[in-house]
Amino acid sequence: MGKAQWIWYPDDFEVYQNILVSNLREQRNEYYNIMWELGRVHTNVLFYKIVDLEKPERFDVKSNGQICIRINNAKKTEYTYGKGIMLKPGRNFIKVFATKLDGGFPAIYATGDHFSTDGTWKVSMYGQEDEFAGTNSHYDSPDMDPCVFFFKYKRINPTSITEVNGGKLVDFGSEVMGKLIISSKQNNVPCCVFYGESQTEALDEEDCILTDSPLLKKGDNVLRSRACRYVFIKCEKDISVSMDYEYIDVKDIGSFKCSDRKINKVWDVCKYTMHLNMREGFYDGIKRDRWIWGGDAYLSFFVNAYLTNDKDIVRRTLTMLRGRDDLTQHVNTIIDYSCYWIMNLWEYYYFTGDIEFLKKSYPKTFNLMEMFESNHDDNGFIIGSSRRGDWTFIDWADMDKDGPVCALQMLMYRTYCCMAEMSKVIGDGKYKDFEKKSKNIKKNINKKFWDEEKGGFISSFTSGKREIRRHANIFAILYDVTTEERKQSIIKNVINNPDVPAITTPFFKFFELDAMCTINNFDMFSDMLHSYWGAMVDLGATTMWEQFDPTQKGDEHLEMYGGKYGRSLCHAWGSAPIYLLGKYCLGVRPTSVGYKTYEVRPNLIGLNNAKGTVPLGDNHKISIEMKDGMIKIKSDKEGGVLALRNQLIKIPVNFEIVEKM
Amino acid sequence: MGKAQWIWYPDDFEVYQNILVSNLREQRNEYYNIMWELGRVHTNVLFYKIVDLEKPERFDVKSNGQICIRINNAKKTEYTYGKGIMLKPGRNFIKVFATKLDGGFPAIYATGDHFSTDGTWKVSMYGQEDEFAGTNSHYDSPDMDPCVFFFKYKRINPTSITEVNGGKLVDFGSEVMGKLIISSKQNNVPCCVFYGESQTEALDEEDCILTDSPLLKKGDNVLRSRACRYVFIKCEKDISVSMDYEYIDVKDIGSFKCSDRKINKVWDVCKYTMHLNMREGFYDGIKRDRWIWGGDAYLSFFVNAYLTNDKDIVRRTLTMLRGRDDLTQHVNTIIDYSCYWIMNLWEYYYFTGDIEFLKKSYPKTFNLMEMFESNHDDNGFIIGSSRRGDWTFIDWADMDKDGPVCALQMLMYRTYCCMAEMSKVIGDGKYKDFEKKSKNIKKNINKKFWDEEKGGFISSFTSGKREIRRHANIFAILYDVTTEERKQSIIKNVINNPDVPAITTPFFKFFELDAMCTINNFDMFSDMLHSYWGAMVDLGATTMWEQFDPTQKGDEHLEMYGGKYGRSLCHAWGSAPIYLLGKYCLGVRPTSVGYKTYEVRPNLIGLNNAKGTVPLGDNHKISIEMKDGMIKIKSDKEGGVLALRNQLIKIPVNFEIVEKM
Repeated sequence: MGKAQWIWYPDDFEVYQNILVSNLREQRNEYYNIMWELGRVHTNVLFYKIVDLEKPERFDVKSNGQICIRINNAKKTEYTYGKGIMLKPGRNFIKVFATKLDGGFPAIYATGDHFSTDGTWKVSMYGQEDEFAGTNSHYDSPDMDPCVFFFKYKRINPTSITEVNGGKLVDFGSEVMGKLIISSKQNNVPCCVFYGESQTEALDEEDCILTDSPLLKKGDNVLRSRACRYVFIKCEKDISVSMDYEYIDVKDIGSFKCSDRKINKVWDVCKYTMHLNMREGFYDGIKRDRWIWGGDAYLSFFVNAYLTNDKDIVRRTLTMLRGRDDLTQHVNTIIDYSCYWIMNLWEYYYFTGDIEFLKKSYPKTFNLMEMFESNHDDNGFIIGSSRRGDWTFIDWADMDKDGPVCALQMLMYRTYCCMAEMSKVIGDGKYKDFEKKSKNIKKNINKKFWDEEKGGFISSFTSGKREIRRHANIFAILYDVTTEERKQSIIKNVINNPDVPAITTPFFKFFELDAMCTINNFDMFSDMLHSYWGAMVDLGATTMWEQFDPTQKGDEHLEMYGGKYGRSLCHAWGSAPIYLLGKYCLGVRPTSVGYKTYEVRPNLIGLNNAKGTVPLGDNHKISIEMKDGMIKIKSDKEGGVLALRNQLIKIPVNFEIVEKM
Repeated sequence: MGKAQWIWYPDDFEVYQNILVSNLREQRNEYYNIMWELGRVHTNVLFYKIVDLEKPERFDVKSNGQICIRINNAKKTEYTYGKGIMLKPGRNFIKVFATKLDGGFPAIYATGDHFSTDGTWKVSMYGQEDEFAGTNSHYDSPDMDPCVFFFKYKRINPTSITEVNGGKLVDFGSEVMGKLIISSKQNNVPCCVFYGESQTEALDEEDCILTDSPLLKKGDNVLRSRACRYVFIKCEKDISVSMDYEYIDVKDIGSFKCSDRKINKVWDVCKYTMHLNMREGFYDGIKRDRWIWGGDAYLSFFVNAYLTNDKDIVRRTLTMLRGRDDLTQHVNTIIDYSCYWIMNLWEYYYFTGDIEFLKKSYPKTFNLMEMFESNHDDNGFIIGSSRRGDWTFIDWADMDKDGPVCALQMLMYRTYCCMAEMSKVIGDGKYKDFEKKSKNIKKNINKKFWDEEKGGFISSFTSGKREIRRHANIFAILYDVTTEERKQSIIKNVINNPDVPAITTPFFKFFELDAMCTINNFDMFSDMLHSYWGAMVDLGATTMWEQFDPTQKGDEHLEMYGGKYGRSLCHAWGSAPIYLLGKYCLGVRPTSVGYKTYEVRPNLIGLNNAKGTVPLGDNHKISIEMKDGMIKIKSDKEGGVLALRNQLIKIPVNFEIVEKM
């Protein structure tokens, strides 16, 4: 018998966490709304299990709400947890009706001698198909409440406290997220708290984004979990300050060290940034939105794959974004984010081989596909805004979005490819249709959006402007949407053409760098490691920012979206170097599902030496060291090949090999 | 400008109340589960309104949760209720994003100078169609919380308190429902409370159904709302007892008085019984299930139509039963109850002409129709249990339910007739299909279930038993499913045939009496007024029971469903005489939608004299007095005719007429 787990209606856990996470955003201590549907959890469910016993067996059930237990349809009365129910030998049809009315979801935890609650229990939602219960490995103790997220806490203290402007400026030394604790010696002490990712923000009582005004009671006052590095506190009485730093306990498998100390520092800051944003799901950033966005989550997936390779957070994130498939709009209302969701599901399966999750989630793609296709034109192109409330994002960059947008069709092509791959795995026979559609849209993209004269894909053919932007052309390379000849033309006429506006957002920079590295052009990445990430670190960044413009000065770095402190200074996509260094410098990538086979194609990208580890799925990893013209590799997983000097060398298991580079 | 009302996502109010009501059932202070899906409320919604202003206008918004207000898409920050938001002249697109995370539903209440929240506001559920906001006329003050049901309270005291068995036996003099208040002079006083609809039950510490064990604090201890007449309290300290009697404030329009004091008493007890069961919706009974059942609610509808004619409780009940149409099973899992739901919707419209509610609710019939028809055989008959979890109830009576059950097909026929009528009103053109289906099933019922030899409809043709029961034959008369010739045969060979088992449940007795009265056979009803309802009153009943068998003695009357106190002693369907006396003695019934035309066909049914009033929709009513061979009628609504001596006499408005009977 496995360990007992709390069980619930599938996806209730994730839907609930998504509801909570999506409703925590604030501005000046006021609620700041989410703009999309969040799904809902159940109030009443029926858990059941049939157990055949040889001997009488004692059975106990705990719930987080109210329950009614029926054994072979007879109600057990006057039962309280710990009292035990004696089951008779023979068949016992155990039904537990559970209800929870406080906004949470009903869950139970039960143990017998030979059986306990786990994913083999079934849940009936009455008229609907019965399903296997939802579980999460973190909830395996009767003392836990599955409606309370499994954060861990560590008490931390400020690195400095300075008296300034009639208050205390508290510095935690680096960006942190957690519950501020203000200890007071008296009761009913008024107190104003101003949070800042920067010192400027914390001291700006008028305009800083996060504030609190607790009336302190004697002793520890634990405030809501918030992000900051600095806190400015105005209080007339004597107080002391600490924090319960809030985190999830995921171990790093990936690592990186090289001859360039700046890059090592960048990697460490990226790692810390990523950990702060790994919470209920992948956050965009911890201060402002602190939401789960499908685009940001897609990029975080790749970073995580080269850092912790924690599977649970990916599953949580994807389920939070899509609910249990009772949502009637695109992911975050953005059409491209629905594409990323499907692409992310495939990438997750490809990296991990987690067939259970694929089976569970694949049906959720269908209504997204229906939504896409409800808007198709004769070319099979999706039109961005014809379905009310939908929008096409692609990037904040100015772009001609008249009629079908080229970059979106590229994502649609990639989406069809991923659907075809998933369909093959699932075996539902739909892959032929997806392959046909992918070929059709690829053909039409190349027919309608290619501009022979300009040598690249145009943003829109509807407006007649024939505008060239990098976005669609980057996707063309990254997702293999065109011929090699046209790719060469793109590199020459778009990528290396200074007249085509540069990518300015770190979001799209991620795709651009990935595409460039794909075609073995590491210069831009190498350069940005210093000019972008390195420069942020030089400015004292303890976490990577949402955006960075080296030409800006001082507090200009804090502005965004028209707000003085609109920029997030701890943004997940800032951690891109972890992915790019792991994939292109250490050179590790899967070549079949779940790293059953994988390739190491190392490249010092201009560094003197470099070493690191990359997760290979589950707890496997590979260590690589490049130094003095030699490469040392040790892997604990079979299936690996080292691509070196146009050779493929088989990588042994648990045995270090050394090769000349 | 109308009065401001709280607004919410349509049906959230009713769905929420249904969740609460359905989860309040207890047995020995333990939760007793509901067995069907309850629907869910929203956590996040967007309310909006566009107002065009000539002058600046102040606007205020209150919510029952968190809100974020955006005027022309700009967020209003640092707003608290009462502070006011100044709107500029011109177009103001007001958006209020509202969220509620505690299990309730988000709602807002807003007032401007020239506009306020009401049913003209719209609600966006993002990807879904926008809808007009839900409202309820009871929630029109900023001090109310729409998640708290609009009960009123009246402090009542026991009529007697007797020291017995080491405790206090408290008698409230009649059945009551409300919050027991135990006042203690000390803190931390243990106390055991045993509720009983009968004295026997209250004193049965081992087996009474409702119990409480509060630890009393000093002062008033207000317990959960429960039904009882008696309370037995064991407590070692001095206490005093009272109750906050809980009720909804609906006025009676119907009344009845006659020469038979027993019948007058019966009518009054019926009225009190009905009022106790009129709460969030129509309860079945207030002690045990205290649930909303589609069959019971259907009967309550008719009683209410002749008593208060409160429309809101019918709308609430129907919405509670059906949710917002996201339920995937039959009403209470019972196929016949889905039929009653549709029939009830039509009857409600027919009695009231409430086109708004019909328009809102008619689409909710479609998935019921789909569920019905997913089980149809070649004859168009619905088969009772082929869809998992469905069941065919009809009555507790033993009945051959092999294959298609005749009585269910009769209900299906009536359902098609109601659907056709509703379709005609809505104008969606589907009525032809419904008419075709109704004709088809009527033809096949008469072909397959009619037994020429036995002269009646058989329960099932599948089993070969050719069993005759009253149920289908009663429906055949009541819903006009067969020829006049066959109806005469049914009366002779089934209804008046003592070899056919009698109807024993009051639930089905309602249909039987209705059918008998329809064919001008008042004997059974007249007889039962004394032998059934009168006899209950003689036994001291202060409310009508779920069931009554005059051959039982003493505590035998309390037993049902295998439990010592399983019988409900305050059951809505016990109030049938209000409907039957109003419709068949006072003789009032609508002859077109909303009492636009109506008929009075009075009948003293053996009484010396009788008088009373009947609601005619909205606040209209008609008064009728039959005495000394004369009839006096006064109505405040046009469209009435008096059917007397084979004549139809037009009833004037607000002018009493007197006619010879």
